[in-house]
Amino acid sequence: MRLLDKQEIEDIAVGAALLGTGGGGDPYIGKLMALQAIEEYGPIKLLDPEEVPDDAMIVPSAMMGAPTVMIEKVPSGEEAVTAFQSLRDYLGEEIYATMPIEAGGVNSLLPFALAARQGIPVVDCDGMGRAFPELQMVTFYLDGLEATPMVLSDEKGNGMLLNTINSVWAERLARGATIEMGGSVMLAIYPMKGKDLKRSAIRNSLSLEEKIGRSIREAKAKNYDAIDEVLKITSGFKLFQGKVKDIDRKTETGFARGTAIIEGIKDYKGQELELNFQNEHLLAKTEEKLLCVTPDLIAVLDAETGMPITTEGLRYGARCIVIGMPCDPKWRTEKAIEIAGPSYFGYDVAYTPVEKLAGKGEE
Amino acid sequence: MRLLDKQEIEDIAVGAALLGTGGGGDPYIGKLMALQAIEEYGPIKLLDPEEVPDDAMIVPSAMMGAPTVMIEKVPSGEEAVTAFQSLRDYLGEEIYATMPIEAGGVNSLLPFALAARQGIPVVDCDGMGRAFPELQMVTFYLDGLEATPMVLSDEKGNGMLLNTINSVWAERLARGATIEMGGSVMLAIYPMKGKDLKRSAIRNSLSLEEKIGRSIREAKAKNYDAIDEVLKITSGFKLFQGKVKDIDRKTETGFARGTAIIEGIKDYKGQELELNFQNEHLLAKTEEKLLCVTPDLIAVLDAETGMPITTEGLRYGARCIVIGMPCDPKWRTEKAIEIAGPSYFGYDVAYTPVEKLAGKGEE
Repeated sequence: MRLLDKQEIEDIAVGAALLGTGGGGDPYIGKLMALQAIEEYGPIKLLDPEEVPDDAMIVPSAMMGAPTVMIEKVPSGEEAVTAFQSLRDYLGEEIYATMPIEAGGVNSLLPFALAARQGIPVVDCDGMGRAFPELQMVTFYLDGLEATPMVLSDEKGNGMLLNTINSVWAERLARGATIEMGGSVMLAIYPMKGKDLKRSAIRNSLSLEEKIGRSIREAKAKNYDAIDEVLKITSGFKLFQGKVKDIDRKTETGFARGTAIIEGIKDYKGQELELNFQNEHLLAKTEEKLLCVTPDLIAVLDAETGMPITTEGLRYGARCIVIGMPCDPKWRTEKAIEIAGPSYFGYDVAYTPVEKLAGKGEE
Repeated sequence: MRLLDKQEIEDIAVGAALLGTGGGGDPYIGKLMALQAIEEYGPIKLLDPEEVPDDAMIVPSAMMGAPTVMIEKVPSGEEAVTAFQSLRDYLGEEIYATMPIEAGGVNSLLPFALAARQGIPVVDCDGMGRAFPELQMVTFYLDGLEATPMVLSDEKGNGMLLNTINSVWAERLARGATIEMGGSVMLAIYPMKGKDLKRSAIRNSLSLEEKIGRSIREAKAKNYDAIDEVLKITSGFKLFQGKVKDIDRKTETGFARGTAIIEGIKDYKGQELELNFQNEHLLAKTEEKLLCVTPDLIAVLDAETGMPITTEGLRYGARCIVIGMPCDPKWRTEKAIEIAGPSYFGYDVAYTPVEKLAGKGEE
């Protein structure tokens, strides 16, 4: 157990934006909420998964919806508390700790705000090791854990408790409700025992985010290039460097979908990168070849500051560096590729590990 | 208290189809379910509202969705029990009795099947005195009672518990979920105490349905015209007689909407009646004048048998008689006309009581 204060939250927010692969909601909002909660309630306990008792009840918390909506509809924090308490009452059991469902943007940070308000710890892990757009795209689902009972709460005071036959139905019903409720809601979801958390969660992803954020901060302070450091920490690859030339973005069926075209500069002059996203960046390719595809991670970094740029933060003319990072091995099984690989998102390419695409594979 | 056996259910089903103004789902399905439940569990207790203790918990049960879907997706009865028990567990209180939310088609009959399975009585009342397509269109809403906590259950085993800020939100979220869940679901809704039921429900509507059904049955047996008897019981008016010439029907946003054109015969030769429906018949007019409009009741009866025809049972060439009946006085206040009058459904006419349109008003 260690205590996280404001600096750690700042660093986690930067790392979360990177692992969030452009998605998971604006980390800035989540960070502000977490910082304010620390201001009010003091530092937050971070537990290693090993410190969680096997029979303790853990409830991940998350925001669901399109990031483009979240920016306009900032949550008060009350929705999360309401969702959490409703689920606790339904379970009839005290909740030992919370955790993020994904390592991405707002959803890495929101559990801290909730934990501070509830006086409970956050567990240093998540269910994706990155960000993904749908509720069943978690290691918990791969490991047979259920999304429900889960609770959705909106800022108006509407609440919904779901008990579904599987997590795909949970996604379907919650997504429909999220749209009706105005595009974003707070969730208390995937309630699980400590022993299940230990076998299923992706461990220490919050610490990894912190490490990434700290290295970018230090590079900035000491005026050296952060990219190399980030690539080392994440075992990643530089894929492209260029300037955003074109963005096509729309919010549909609760998702922010779109495409960005990046015009190459320096070593990449004369080439164009096409980035496809659906809340998160999912596929990066040039005219000639595939560079990285989901479930591997794609992040876009500001060429100057090394800071990650979210999909909704991508602006015409922005100079950026695109990197690819291998996903957790849990995402490379056949079943995992089926639920979070390229064909699930409608891209007609086979999944190939980023290190192989980069010519650094072990084959 | 009296016991209802199979004959009473048969009669109620006929009366329910009439008061259901063509909507509320196919009464045949509800009747079969109620009859089967009586076969299995014995006659069902019917309570007068006056017999319900003030502090007893009453939970209406209903099916939500488009009747056109219900025909293809017959409920097993298990969904209703699941919804009911989930709400009981949530309330933490035994449920004393159930009742229909509307006097219409399947929804008048389903509470009997549930009551038989649960060994509880049905209260002789409902929340509409007719059928309406939306959850807030009930006297309970007019009287400030809340639709939630409510539970939706589908036949697959998915369940949803809603707690909304008002009944319009309950309708909105439940409607969206119903569509996702396949077009029809079972509800346990508007939980209320006996004292609220007594001040808000439309009383003895099940007995009224039974009386209507019995009079049509007896007329048929004794070979005389049932229509006059029905008009007497319901204080109704004969509006039109003719042959269905054209039907335009579609299922959209969870409703069966459409229009039927009826070509006049006998006294009505040379005229055409236009019937507009949205699950229920809502407006009847000729080219010259309005004949009857919601919240007053419009029913279409088979010219030969006097049996009510549902909106989904309307067929090209069917010979029918259209009647209009005054709604309960609770539907004639300003607030009631606002939530269930013609302009709510998009018809650009002012509400005028059917007796006034028929030239029999007291003005």
